[in-house]
Amino acid sequence: MKKLILLALCASTAAVAAPATPEALRDAALKDDVAWEITEGLTTEVGPRLAGTEAEARARAWSAKKLKALGFSNVRIETCDMPVWRRGAESGEIIAPFPARLALTALGNSAATPAGGLEAEIVYFPTLADLEAAKDGSLKGKIAFVSHAMRPTQDGSSYGPFGQARRIGPNIAAQKGATAIVIRSIGTDHHRNPHAGNTAFAAGVTPIPAAALSIPDAENLERILARGKPVRMKLLLTPTFDARGQSGNVIAEVPGSDPKAGIIVIGGHLDSWDLGTGAIDDATGVAITAAAAKRIMAAGQPRRTIRVVWFGAEEVAGCGGPSYYERHKAERHVLTAESDFGADRIWSVTAKLGAGAKPVEARLSSVLAPLGIAFEAGEAHGGADISPLVEAGVPVIDLHQDGTRYFDLHHTPDDTLDKVDPEALRQNVAAWTAMLAIAANAAEDFGRVE
Amino acid sequence: MKKLILLALCASTAAVAAPATPEALRDAALKDDVAWEITEGLTTEVGPRLAGTEAEARARAWSAKKLKALGFSNVRIETCDMPVWRRGAESGEIIAPFPARLALTALGNSAATPAGGLEAEIVYFPTLADLEAAKDGSLKGKIAFVSHAMRPTQDGSSYGPFGQARRIGPNIAAQKGATAIVIRSIGTDHHRNPHAGNTAFAAGVTPIPAAALSIPDAENLERILARGKPVRMKLLLTPTFDARGQSGNVIAEVPGSDPKAGIIVIGGHLDSWDLGTGAIDDATGVAITAAAAKRIMAAGQPRRTIRVVWFGAEEVAGCGGPSYYERHKAERHVLTAESDFGADRIWSVTAKLGAGAKPVEARLSSVLAPLGIAFEAGEAHGGADISPLVEAGVPVIDLHQDGTRYFDLHHTPDDTLDKVDPEALRQNVAAWTAMLAIAANAAEDFGRVE
Ligand SMILES: [Zn+2]
Ligand SMILES: [Zn+2]
Ligand SMILES: [Zn+2]
Ligand SMILES: [Zn+2]
Repeated sequence: MKKLILLALCASTAAVAAPATPEALRDAALKDDVAWEITEGLTTEVGPRLAGTEAEARARAWSAKKLKALGFSNVRIETCDMPVWRRGAESGEIIAPFPARLALTALGNSAATPAGGLEAEIVYFPTLADLEAAKDGSLKGKIAFVSHAMRPTQDGSSYGPFGQARRIGPNIAAQKGATAIVIRSIGTDHHRNPHAGNTAFAAGVTPIPAAALSIPDAENLERILARGKPVRMKLLLTPTFDARGQSGNVIAEVPGSDPKAGIIVIGGHLDSWDLGTGAIDDATGVAITAAAAKRIMAAGQPRRTIRVVWFGAEEVAGCGGPSYYERHKAERHVLTAESDFGADRIWSVTAKLGAGAKPVEARLSSVLAPLGIAFEAGEAHGGADISPLVEAGVPVIDLHQDGTRYFDLHHTPDDTLDKVDPEALRQNVAAWTAMLAIAANAAEDFGRVE
Repeated sequence: MKKLILLALCASTAAVAAPATPEALRDAALKDDVAWEITEGLTTEVGPRLAGTEAEARARAWSAKKLKALGFSNVRIETCDMPVWRRGAESGEIIAPFPARLALTALGNSAATPAGGLEAEIVYFPTLADLEAAKDGSLKGKIAFVSHAMRPTQDGSSYGPFGQARRIGPNIAAQKGATAIVIRSIGTDHHRNPHAGNTAFAAGVTPIPAAALSIPDAENLERILARGKPVRMKLLLTPTFDARGQSGNVIAEVPGSDPKAGIIVIGGHLDSWDLGTGAIDDATGVAITAAAAKRIMAAGQPRRTIRVVWFGAEEVAGCGGPSYYERHKAERHVLTAESDFGADRIWSVTAKLGAGAKPVEARLSSVLAPLGIAFEAGEAHGGADISPLVEAGVPVIDLHQDGTRYFDLHHTPDDTLDKVDPEALRQNVAAWTAMLAIAANAAEDFGRVE
């Protein structure tokens, strides 16, 4: 009996002492519970955390506490100032020819309507190009309605072109004299939940009220318009602006053994839109990256420092990413990667590394392939938060999640914990852990990239 | 060339003149567009039509006009009086320990909260049985929260037992002194859209505010409660009651050639809950039955009269079904069937016919099998609207739709046209057409059933 216990102890000691290969760390990560714990905690105990608000500040406090409890070093909050847009009341309805209540939500940076709402006739534009082709002044006194035909794509690439209806549609409508604009939500689902998201008005253009209709409401409106009668709509939006607000980044580290080997910056964004609880956008991103870093930390000190950054104010193009860069640009950043595309299974990896790092790519390809992840020749870009680093020439790796259902949920009330598949989340942690195990210990230099 | 045209004319004349077998009518119905036209029109041009409201009256007017245009005989509206419950403002939030807005909706017959809402601690009951086991008076000053574990079933049978949390949960909570009750929506989806539906308070029990939380909100609340701290909630509901309201049925007929052969009553319900546009519940039901009846009418006069009834106020257990029965009970009703379970594919048929009608069952089985519909030995019950007829001994046939996703949508804002699969809708029309072709012309008597 004693012998058996001793053998068991030896076996366990041997297991701990064995060199933790990237393959072994990858496989162990398939049992990870830390990413779920972070995602569950952040969505349940903090919930929505709109950039610049008190909720985002609560999220930072929650996060710093959590990262300390997980054993990270140098956990700190770095704040930055920014103006804050806050949602108010919002409602809309078709008045004529067929009364219908509309599920809609104000876009970020939308102007407010009069307190009693506004009422106007709708002018329909099947695509953004149709709005662009409208004569200047032709929208005076009207509400522009812009639709589009976005469909799901695995790589999320449809969001770029079709998302323009939200990003620049309101500015164009304002320039042409529209009273307000409603767009078909930038999304791929069929639920009565509108998709929020930011828009922007150019300097010199007076912002107008701008809202997204849920997709079933947009389709219903198209059917009503197809009857050929004038369609009148009532719209009430009461968002507010506050010039003085604060966002910030939460930073945690796994210190490396070789200070000259530089820093690897990974992370996601902590802020979220306010309609859901920001589960897939982007609690899972901060959770996956921290869980993977913790696994590297637990396996013994890596050569390079891994810096986990949970960025603030990504959703509203706020101060998180830029302020990190301004504060830290003098440091030796050697690699960066961001997770901001949900937590469905990663299916491909791309990298932008210096020429000397080819052997690293080969090792990455080999360690990720068993997870169903293909090393592809395409470009790597990183997320919005790390783009200042990437633009400055820091090498970057992209681990691409399957985005087929991402835009069903993106920026909607439906972005909640139940949409996260725990097994897919673990596959994400395994991929990030394997990537970090290789990158944080590689003897090769990753170089600089243009 | 002339010869060819003549041949074509002859062929076409021959086709029209050929006896329209149930099989031929069934196959032609697989190209039906009438059911879609009705469903699209009713959801687009009328939209939500809560029983007893002006919207339901508009739906009756729309329907009578449509049924006349389709060529039916004796199109008429038969009104009836009933009290009306109307939704007011509604909102809710968790105040502590973690603030969170809740997606919820008042249940039909819910009482109103004070105008400023009410705030109280939540007491959690995982199941209705747990609420039933609570001591009298133990809920004083509290909000009861009742959950359940409803899962999708093809035959919809989970709705019976799990739906009790909505049907009788509020009455039980009121009896035990609760200030209010919230339940996990009776549904099987994971969207931030609560499921409406009726509840009832017994005579002598003072109604309390009663609402359904969306399923993600209910799950979030369960996770918050699992932290073990007291959970406080704010609830605002301002529904109103109006003792004087009117509902009614819209009736249309295909007169039979043999007055002694009796009347077949088919239909669905015209009213809907107010959050969606009542597409699958029950625009498709009225559409399928009318489209099938029109096909029988177009094929030549049937032996029996087919009476299509679009009932009012089904959702609120209102006056539509009972008033039809009271007015028409002296007539010779020989068979009845209702469509009120969406429009996904019909997968089985059951019948309760008199003993002399066995050959009819065999013919039904044979004509429906190619549509993937199995004749099963189980009971037939009809829908709520025709239950007074069924209780009085009128034979009944049930064409069972696949209900796997029905309770994802049932009574939610998501019950909209985009949820209707046009091909599945056609399969429904084909099944109903084949059934009517046999039943309306059968030489056999269907007898009476207990
Ligand atoms: Zn994001
Ligand atoms: Zn986002
Ligand atoms: Zn129904
Ligand atoms: Zn219903």
